[in-house]
Amino acid sequence: MPKIVDHAERRKEIASTVLDLIAERGVNAATIRAVAERSGWSTGVIGHYFEDRKDLLLGALRRAGELAGAKQLEINRLLIGRQALEAVLEEELPLDRRRLALTRIFVFFYAEAAADESTSAEVDMYLRRWRRQVAHAVRAAQELGDLDPSLDADIVAMDLVALTDGLSIQAIFNGELMARLRESSPIRMWINRLAPLASHALDEWITR
Amino acid sequence: MPKIVDHAERRKEIASTVLDLIAERGVNAATIRAVAERSGWSTGVIGHYFEDRKDLLLGALRRAGELAGAKQLEINRLLIGRQALEAVLEEELPLDRRRLALTRIFVFFYAEAAADESTSAEVDMYLRRWRRQVAHAVRAAQELGDLDPSLDADIVAMDLVALTDGLSIQAIFNGELMARLRESSPIRMWINRLAPLASHALDEWITR
Repeated sequence: MPKIVDHAERRKEIASTVLDLIAERGVNAATIRAVAERSGWSTGVIGHYFEDRKDLLLGALRRAGELAGAKQLEINRLLIGRQALEAVLEEELPLDRRRLALTRIFVFFYAEAAADESTSAEVDMYLRRWRRQVAHAVRAAQELGDLDPSLDADIVAMDLVALTDGLSIQAIFNGELMARLRESSPIRMWINRLAPLASHALDEWITR
Repeated sequence: MPKIVDHAERRKEIASTVLDLIAERGVNAATIRAVAERSGWSTGVIGHYFEDRKDLLLGALRRAGELAGAKQLEINRLLIGRQALEAVLEEELPLDRRRLALTRIFVFFYAEAAADESTSAEVDMYLRRWRRQVAHAVRAAQELGDLDPSLDADIVAMDLVALTDGLSIQAIFNGELMARLRESSPIRMWINRLAPLASHALDEWITR
């Protein structure tokens, strides 16, 4: 009797191996051959799940998206208010191997998407989902009185996602910025500046 | 007697043609053949100035950098304070053809730079120069009392550059965000939030 193969599980395993390679050596190192060597599956088996290298990378992008989604759910269960918002955003900064792979694969697909319509739609879908999660956290923080209630949550979310994404991408090329991201949270400073104005001034007065 | 050719000028002209093509049809459309058709120079002449396609795109990146640099000088001559800071940052948003080409070519080189050390150094050099210009504008605005003097200008500059870059890149994939950028300035809202805290609260009080 042939062994029953859990295809969804194996697909995930291969995609996770791609992400490991990207975290360690960059997108260029994530070839079908390298994934075969690392995972122990033959290139033939990998070819059964992923058509070509771009498809393999797309699989890794989707896997990275799933992993990030699971983290977001966890944050929403554990944190509230400004803290939750900060955590939701930092989930996308390259602060560990998993998130470094996420940033690198996104930069790769940004360049692909600038040239190719179908990739562009996929990238935009991730960005929309991320903005929705952040907008949700902004609204929740506003309801708690943590953020200025007069701010438009969707617009603030769009900007905070862009800020986080810009920091992540630029940190790939700049060790100084990467070190700063890992040392302290630039995101917190900007969120603090969105506090209701009166208490904001009061915080300042108290810390003097 | 052979005609005297201004090689620097011709190099610039070719690079400008590349930027035109990128603004109209994206980075993929900017091939040596397409540049030859558009500019009227033969592919042989273009090959005299640029080794291959990547070199041609690098020439366009440098030309875009020069054009942006000239704009920055103009802004510093005409504006001061928060207005100057806002203008310096908006210079990098894809609000017209020139700046759309700049964003697109940057996305292309971000992906290249993630894989290639020498390109990475070039991209980082542009980002450093941009951050220095922004930090200079932040300090000038602080001296005028326009921005909170307790903020670290270099750190605020790093973040504002990342915000602007993130907005620019994401707007390529999202028509809604692009429309918003063209309609009003998201940058202004964030700069306003950096106002000295007391007058900030006062502004709010006055507008009530």
